[in-house]
Amino acid sequence: MLIETSIPFRYIFRKIKLDLIRVLIFSITFHIILIFFSSYLPQIPFQLPTVLGTSISLLLAFNVNQAYDRWWEARKVWGAIVNDSRSLIIQLKGFINNEHDLQGNSASILQRMAHRQIAWCYCLGQSLRGNNPITADVENNLSPENVDFIRTQNNKPFALLMLQMDDLKELYETEAINSFQQVQINSTITRLCDSMGKVERINSTVFPVTYRIFIHFFIYLFLIILSLALVETVGWFEIPILTLIASTFFLIEKTAKHMQDPFKNKPTDTAVTAIARTIEINIKQILHRPNVPEPLAPEGFYLM
Amino acid sequence: MLIETSIPFRYIFRKIKLDLIRVLIFSITFHIILIFFSSYLPQIPFQLPTVLGTSISLLLAFNVNQAYDRWWEARKVWGAIVNDSRSLIIQLKGFINNEHDLQGNSASILQRMAHRQIAWCYCLGQSLRGNNPITADVENNLSPENVDFIRTQNNKPFALLMLQMDDLKELYETEAINSFQQVQINSTITRLCDSMGKVERINSTVFPVTYRIFIHFFIYLFLIILSLALVETVGWFEIPILTLIASTFFLIEKTAKHMQDPFKNKPTDTAVTAIARTIEINIKQILHRPNVPEPLAPEGFYLM
Amino acid sequence: MLIETSIPFRYIFRKIKLDLIRVLIFSITFHIILIFFSSYLPQIPFQLPTVLGTSISLLLAFNVNQAYDRWWEARKVWGAIVNDSRSLIIQLKGFINNEHDLQGNSASILQRMAHRQIAWCYCLGQSLRGNNPITADVENNLSPENVDFIRTQNNKPFALLMLQMDDLKELYETEAINSFQQVQINSTITRLCDSMGKVERINSTVFPVTYRIFIHFFIYLFLIILSLALVETVGWFEIPILTLIASTFFLIEKTAKHMQDPFKNKPTDTAVTAIARTIEINIKQILHRPNVPEPLAPEGFYLM
Amino acid sequence: MLIETSIPFRYIFRKIKLDLIRVLIFSITFHIILIFFSSYLPQIPFQLPTVLGTSISLLLAFNVNQAYDRWWEARKVWGAIVNDSRSLIIQLKGFINNEHDLQGNSASILQRMAHRQIAWCYCLGQSLRGNNPITADVENNLSPENVDFIRTQNNKPFALLMLQMDDLKELYETEAINSFQQVQINSTITRLCDSMGKVERINSTVFPVTYRIFIHFFIYLFLIILSLALVETVGWFEIPILTLIASTFFLIEKTAKHMQDPFKNKPTDTAVTAIARTIEINIKQILHRPNVPEPLAPEGFYLM
Amino acid sequence: MLIETSIPFRYIFRKIKLDLIRVLIFSITFHIILIFFSSYLPQIPFQLPTVLGTSISLLLAFNVNQAYDRWWEARKVWGAIVNDSRSLIIQLKGFINNEHDLQGNSASILQRMAHRQIAWCYCLGQSLRGNNPITADVENNLSPENVDFIRTQNNKPFALLMLQMDDLKELYETEAINSFQQVQINSTITRLCDSMGKVERINSTVFPVTYRIFIHFFIYLFLIILSLALVETVGWFEIPILTLIASTFFLIEKTAKHMQDPFKNKPTDTAVTAIARTIEINIKQILHRPNVPEPLAPEGFYLM
Repeated sequence: MLIETSIPFRYIFRKIKLDLIRVLIFSITFHIILIFFSSYLPQIPFQLPTVLGTSISLLLAFNVNQAYDRWWEARKVWGAIVNDSRSLIIQLKGFINNEHDLQGNSASILQRMAHRQIAWCYCLGQSLRGNNPITADVENNLSPENVDFIRTQNNKPFALLMLQMDDLKELYETEAINSFQQVQINSTITRLCDSMGKVERINSTVFPVTYRIFIHFFIYLFLIILSLALVETVGWFEIPILTLIASTFFLIEKTAKHMQDPFKNKPTDTAVTAIARTIEINIKQILHRPNVPEPLAPEGFYLM
Repeated sequence: MLIETSIPFRYIFRKIKLDLIRVLIFSITFHIILIFFSSYLPQIPFQLPTVLGTSISLLLAFNVNQAYDRWWEARKVWGAIVNDSRSLIIQLKGFINNEHDLQGNSASILQRMAHRQIAWCYCLGQSLRGNNPITADVENNLSPENVDFIRTQNNKPFALLMLQMDDLKELYETEAINSFQQVQINSTITRLCDSMGKVERINSTVFPVTYRIFIHFFIYLFLIILSLALVETVGWFEIPILTLIASTFFLIEKTAKHMQDPFKNKPTDTAVTAIARTIEINIKQILHRPNVPEPLAPEGFYLM
Repeated sequence: MLIETSIPFRYIFRKIKLDLIRVLIFSITFHIILIFFSSYLPQIPFQLPTVLGTSISLLLAFNVNQAYDRWWEARKVWGAIVNDSRSLIIQLKGFINNEHDLQGNSASILQRMAHRQIAWCYCLGQSLRGNNPITADVENNLSPENVDFIRTQNNKPFALLMLQMDDLKELYETEAINSFQQVQINSTITRLCDSMGKVERINSTVFPVTYRIFIHFFIYLFLIILSLALVETVGWFEIPILTLIASTFFLIEKTAKHMQDPFKNKPTDTAVTAIARTIEINIKQILHRPNVPEPLAPEGFYLM
Repeated sequence: MLIETSIPFRYIFRKIKLDLIRVLIFSITFHIILIFFSSYLPQIPFQLPTVLGTSISLLLAFNVNQAYDRWWEARKVWGAIVNDSRSLIIQLKGFINNEHDLQGNSASILQRMAHRQIAWCYCLGQSLRGNNPITADVENNLSPENVDFIRTQNNKPFALLMLQMDDLKELYETEAINSFQQVQINSTITRLCDSMGKVERINSTVFPVTYRIFIHFFIYLFLIILSLALVETVGWFEIPILTLIASTFFLIEKTAKHMQDPFKNKPTDTAVTAIARTIEINIKQILHRPNVPEPLAPEGFYLM
Repeated sequence: MLIETSIPFRYIFRKIKLDLIRVLIFSITFHIILIFFSSYLPQIPFQLPTVLGTSISLLLAFNVNQAYDRWWEARKVWGAIVNDSRSLIIQLKGFINNEHDLQGNSASILQRMAHRQIAWCYCLGQSLRGNNPITADVENNLSPENVDFIRTQNNKPFALLMLQMDDLKELYETEAINSFQQVQINSTITRLCDSMGKVERINSTVFPVTYRIFIHFFIYLFLIILSLALVETVGWFEIPILTLIASTFFLIEKTAKHMQDPFKNKPTDTAVTAIARTIEINIKQILHRPNVPEPLAPEGFYLM
């Protein structure tokens, strides 16, 4: 997540360097053609780029809006993960029957599940970004057996949720919770499983490819026609004007592209590691643990 | 689902070939008329195609947005199918009471239901696409009696869910689960039934026909008026310019059309077979089965 | 629901005949005025119809979008009716305790409720369309006493749901289902009651009248100004051009109007009878009934 | 709710009288300035009002859309109130255990709760509109003690729901319903309480004030610039043309304003009294009461 | 929340002072350049600012719409907080078994939880705004031990919900409520925890920074091009016209910015303190407490 401090100019323009160079090339080319072969260029009426500009602006604005919805949906799902992770631990704490607790057994299951929940959040975030999902944060919150187990599994966050389910079953079988409470906690874990599925869906569903290609193609068509229309009226001023206009369109297009895919290990990502840290802080406070960590600090102009 | 590798140019332009030929014909016709009967063509003021272009762009942009919403809804429902299929097996595994399990009976019901769930996913995907719903993937995960039974039924995926319900009832009657757990699992199967109904609805509801026809008609009206306006100002340049603009509009229109109907056995389909494979992998890992298959590989530039 | 076969030209243009005649009258009038009293008409700058055209296109595009949302919501509710009707029967079948079933009593209640559910779907569809809600399809699936009872009630589909509730109570009192299962089935019937309320809401809520009138008035304002602007530049070509443009705007407006009200007994209606038939087929297959009917066939270019 | 009969012309234009007079004043002023001090007015290029017109049309179209969403949300919540009110009585009727009913006590609680539910609907509607919430319809359906009690309370509809909860508790304590059924009915009353909160929210949340002011200011800016541009090209025709265009913009703006606030005791309100009457009819039919009233008739061109 | 009384002119224009000064500077600069070096300025065709104006208007309109959705979502969540806070107390009152109440113990727990719920609402509001979350309103409704406890916690509203859970557990363990009722109330507290997470999400998620920067940059690009186009046609009139148009665009942009962040301790905030006061009034009336406070009065032109 980009934060509201000064974003380096270099970071912004690196993204559209290639497109700008192309635009420069054809705008200079048209200029040269104009000087030498003036009569070969058609006299484009200015209304033509106007109508194309309106069309592409509309498509682009809708596209940004769809990308924004997708980005906001991803953020909402991670918000639900925060809520359900906290709820899971609060519910366990509220439901576990202390009297039936022989030798502090269910108390230790609560601790185990709470730490595994923290590990799950870190693991899911890394896994979505295509990084190694078993980081130090994950290992520190899991027993060595659990770590070994998930190494053998394809979908590691999903394997962790299965372990949560196994512990829930043990709590029920040792009568630390009743059937009614088991079903309620089961619902919470099912919601976590749903949230995981939702972010996996956003991550694995490519935004309709042809749609994006046609918008890109349409921007170029607009810029070429605009360049032809400008070159005859404003002369060499055409080059800086076209470059500025092209920058704006390409920057908006890139913004849409980044919002569409919020788990690509880029500065514009949803801040999943920071969110996992928040969950860790909240859960450790619920359990009155001493070693509550600090919130994640931003890395320069962004927060991961 | 198209994937982000190079999509063949031929694939893209085949879709709009017919429309482009029509556009070429009338743009050339107007050109010829201009040469021979110049005075018969009205002097169209350029603002007229501008206002028509704005109108049709707006309608088209909204249309693309509605199509996108429909496509995303279809994808969301399949995401819910992933989640609920996994949840169903996790819940069964977490709830089934091992002590009451006489002769490993309920363990074998769990296996049966898990494989039937895999079969259901494949079967639903094929059935939506209008293919033969009983593929090898379906048969391999069902008992021969089940295969014979669903052959006699009209709505095969629905018949499979009924079989799941019968097994659930048996689990309850043999006291492997209690009434409370039965209702919870019943809710999960009901959600699967809902998801099936939702994708059937998207598949069977024709996008408002007149709406689509009028948009198509409006694009032609715009192109004809634009052609008339261009022919007088840019001469023969009108032909390539009009063709390019027409391509863009028709491509955007076709993109909308493909997103509206995401289960038509085309490269732009929702990747239901790949999703069913993911479910198969996840479920087999839950049950610690040895023969976990690989994820489905893309066929060239798309994934089914 | 219109289907994707050729829609008769006559059907489409009958809707806008009146509006087109009005447009023809004033476009011809302006033409005559131009010929005889040329100097009395103001020299409308073409940008004026451009800005009005953009405004009305925007309002119209949003209006179509709102109408589309309303149409899609109606279709979604009927999709939920399909799902909950099937779920109701599946749940009853899965929950009814065969051992407590004295003299096959609860089996016969299941049959009764299943047929009444089919009757309810047909009855609701006809009732929404303002037709006689007690058709042959309704009578064939109800006992004569039930038919007599609903004749005395104002809201006939609602009365049928009350009868379902009475039978549910009887199942509980004869201990064929337990309290937990009763509540679960009660939720399903409550959802059906909700869906009924939702389609009643869509049907009885008039789309904001002034909003629609102002859009209609705005289209005329645009066409009159456009006519004045065209008459001076393109002469008699103004008449066919204006007629074509007016057709497109009025057709789009009519499309919005039809989508807003999806239960008016018109070809553009949501296909409620066909949906009720689908439910009948599915329910009869669940109960292994022999006389499963065929899906409803389209009547020419539409399906009711 | 306005109904689809002829809406008086006077009703429509009264709303924008003031704005139209202002527009007339400045359009006439510019005309006079033009005649006497022609050279003092700038020669506004017509593209300037075009771009402003597009901007304000966009903002207005989005504003209408947001207002429409708010209006439709209000209508949806009242639809949910219809559904949950009917469901509450159906559930009570289906759950109350007749055998445990000593001296017809719980039957009389059912009657009491049903009438109180009718009273609640009328009371909520009047309370939202800022009228005296204790009308004849409310008093007729409540015991005198209840009427006296709610007179002492600030939030009268909320007080009625508390009384429903008290009766529900009594039903549970007399064992007329079991704990499971109590929780289910409790959920229904909670949903009613939620719906009440939602309409209170819509009613008490002022639509962002600055947003509305800036749109109003923007319309004037557009009209002034348009007036300056028109006065030089079309002469005195400017006055009727500007007035017509201004009317359309102000009418659309007022439509948005009315849809934003659907409980202001105006003809454009959501028809809450008519809805409460529908609930009364439905509930009285469930209980087989003889004195079922007629649906509320419209008052001229609208229904309250 | 701004209220519908006269908003001070000074308040509105303070926000865009800086941007207007910049616009004045470059519009005057262009004017001077025009006078002295007329031939150095390109002759910008007016269609260029038209197409840019359309594009930026579109992006701005969508941006306002996204901001509005975010603002409305925040208001909806606080509406849900009102509903669930009231429901929590109603449910506790309806469920607590008076017979099992030894020494009025559970009655006093009800009082304690009700006051803590009031404290939670005030505390959450202040905490979102970054103020000291432990105000007098919070302290007055909490026991001194509770106040001391939350002082040690990072997330104070969350700590208060944990205390609610502890009391709920005590109610269950003293058999004042049964397991079924415990789960139902647990759901209500979980929903409150969800609402808290949702407003924290809205508060902590920065609106995509680059998106906002590019829109701001695009407005300047449009104004500069427009200034160049105007300076040649309308002379010194350019300065007031440009200033007015710039004001409108910047005001709309600022409106979007304020709606995006509804918890920044500004007059445009969601009125969270007033909402907390409403909850306090409602809860105190449920418990028949004598000291019901007045609703919060607006501070000048806004309500906090």
